[in-house]
Amino acid sequence: MSKGRLEAFSDGVLAIIITIMVLELRTPESGDLSALVPLAPKFLSYVLSFIYIGIYWNNHHHLWQAVKGVNGAILWANMHLLFWLSLIPFVTGWMGEHFSTTPVAFYGLVLGLAGLAYYILVRALIAHHGRDSLIAVAIGKDEKGLRSLYIYSAAIQLAFVSHCTATGLYIVVAIMWLIPDRRIENKLSK
Amino acid sequence: MSKGRLEAFSDGVLAIIITIMVLELRTPESGDLSALVPLAPKFLSYVLSFIYIGIYWNNHHHLWQAVKGVNGAILWANMHLLFWLSLIPFVTGWMGEHFSTTPVAFYGLVLGLAGLAYYILVRALIAHHGRDSLIAVAIGKDEKGLRSLYIYSAAIQLAFVSHCTATGLYIVVAIMWLIPDRRIENKLSK
Amino acid sequence: MSKGRLEAFSDGVLAIIITIMVLELRTPESGDLSALVPLAPKFLSYVLSFIYIGIYWNNHHHLWQAVKGVNGAILWANMHLLFWLSLIPFVTGWMGEHFSTTPVAFYGLVLGLAGLAYYILVRALIAHHGRDSLIAVAIGKDEKGLRSLYIYSAAIQLAFVSHCTATGLYIVVAIMWLIPDRRIENKLSK
Amino acid sequence: MSKGRLEAFSDGVLAIIITIMVLELRTPESGDLSALVPLAPKFLSYVLSFIYIGIYWNNHHHLWQAVKGVNGAILWANMHLLFWLSLIPFVTGWMGEHFSTTPVAFYGLVLGLAGLAYYILVRALIAHHGRDSLIAVAIGKDEKGLRSLYIYSAAIQLAFVSHCTATGLYIVVAIMWLIPDRRIENKLSK
Repeated sequence: MSKGRLEAFSDGVLAIIITIMVLELRTPESGDLSALVPLAPKFLSYVLSFIYIGIYWNNHHHLWQAVKGVNGAILWANMHLLFWLSLIPFVTGWMGEHFSTTPVAFYGLVLGLAGLAYYILVRALIAHHGRDSLIAVAIGKDEKGLRSLYIYSAAIQLAFVSHCTATGLYIVVAIMWLIPDRRIENKLSK
Repeated sequence: MSKGRLEAFSDGVLAIIITIMVLELRTPESGDLSALVPLAPKFLSYVLSFIYIGIYWNNHHHLWQAVKGVNGAILWANMHLLFWLSLIPFVTGWMGEHFSTTPVAFYGLVLGLAGLAYYILVRALIAHHGRDSLIAVAIGKDEKGLRSLYIYSAAIQLAFVSHCTATGLYIVVAIMWLIPDRRIENKLSK
Repeated sequence: MSKGRLEAFSDGVLAIIITIMVLELRTPESGDLSALVPLAPKFLSYVLSFIYIGIYWNNHHHLWQAVKGVNGAILWANMHLLFWLSLIPFVTGWMGEHFSTTPVAFYGLVLGLAGLAYYILVRALIAHHGRDSLIAVAIGKDEKGLRSLYIYSAAIQLAFVSHCTATGLYIVVAIMWLIPDRRIENKLSK
Repeated sequence: MSKGRLEAFSDGVLAIIITIMVLELRTPESGDLSALVPLAPKFLSYVLSFIYIGIYWNNHHHLWQAVKGVNGAILWANMHLLFWLSLIPFVTGWMGEHFSTTPVAFYGLVLGLAGLAYYILVRALIAHHGRDSLIAVAIGKDEKGLRSLYIYSAAIQLAFVSHCTATGLYIVVAIMWLIPDRRIENKLSK
């Protein structure tokens, strides 16, 4: 089974997710600069979520370069990932409108479940390609993926103490991933 | 006539349908956990519809691998399928907001008409490829497709007695399709 | 210059236009069947516009099969076509909500301007490919395109007398185009 | 690393941005011609932004034809460009609803930041392909890009004096770019 359409469909869904988030930034009611002030937290949530979707697209793009074929389990693992990512506009809007414990914790929960879904997708890909495949060697133990999951888990709990600290941890994970993952590129270029 | 653009257009429409449904999950009015409670039925409708669109994309993807070419009838049979699928966000939102007889019956009606449109598309493909073609042999009598149509029909009628039972049947059909259809894969790999 | 990305971009825009129109069908306020009654004209407008966008995609797909290359004029002629098509959701929503003279006339105006933009696109393609090219021979004098423009023009004027007659003419043009255009297919298969 | 998916993702995002702007043109409350009057400034903003997104797609398309490969820096430079472009629907809606100093200045600010992001993307591409590459020679000093940035900068300041003059300058830059950039085409055809 070829991988081309799965890439095209995922690109389409990610492109829509990243773009419809901007619909949350509704037209201000006046033309004054002060009308932008209530939009500031929404805008910051949007920036963070834009970067997260960007990271997922980027990683998906990298990962898929080492993929040789797909099966039913991989198709559904990918759909499962897209499901959690599709909820990011909702939690982004909620956290942007009400920057308090529950929305901040849910933002982390959705990020964490998306991270877990990505981890499952990687496992399904390795199971299909074999333990000696390029993809298995390139990913290794996926320490970065696991570490992200631990940080999300900690951040969700911290949200009940300080939602600023929790948000800070979400930013830390984003920065951790912005530093590009050269594992697949290195293995491919050998 | 090549099949590439028809795949790309269908992927685009399905990607948008699956993603705009999330716009129905509007930002809660407060940051409390209790603000999520009224969203629960909407969320469950969303999950069910997400799985259905996922199944359609998956089946479309499988089906199209055995397609060698398209003609005008196939183009319009595909457009007809996309039409009914495009109404899924509407019935999802309605069933999620008002979980009662009429919306539940209409949800089944749209699913049923989409199922029928898929059945017509398969027939148009077989007519174009010939009775001895890979696609005709792989699909056979399309018992699974027909069985789904019978269940939708029963569920729509049951909705007037118990909308929970009707919804249960929609879930049954989804599970029936989540078990992957290996017919085309088997035929292709021979 | 290659034509692949122009096709992909056009497919994306058409897929979004055809799908966002469904957002006009807002969730009814109750779960009763009677709640659907006010949606009926909107639904019928949606069906008509869905078919129109389907026809444009179909014709665009056919036309592009005979295209060998693109230049700047063709890129902008295509963008101009997409502009008028992007206004179809707006006039669809307006005509669906207020089925009266002005909205019906504007629906025809947007259809007519889209038809004109398609005509200009075809001319730009023929100018680029030469008068003896496959595309020029296949399209010929584009009588069907011109006839549609005349009918739109008549329908817009008739809208001031009877908006039902005008809408009837829009349906006539749609049916005229649903009968597939075999010109390019015939020329290609020779 | 191949450039195909980056093109597909960018096309998807640009197609969505150009299309969701039309959602700002809400259904008028009556069916009279006068109901369109308050929509006029929104419509004009939409036209201007449609042309700008068209120009960006067009330039992106041209630029990418000379691209041989991408790296992490280019991926993020492209994502950065898409971020600023994704804010165009927001500023378009704002300027269309409140045609006054601040919205007009912000419109220019977003255009300017998108222009800067494009400039950075071009620099990242030249850094990756080398100073003697086709892309470096074709782009040269990117005088047109720099000139646009100067005009945006002047327009933002002028918005505080006359928002009509500022808007006039945005139109001037658009016309400047509508005249097609033959640099890459010329170099490619040699």
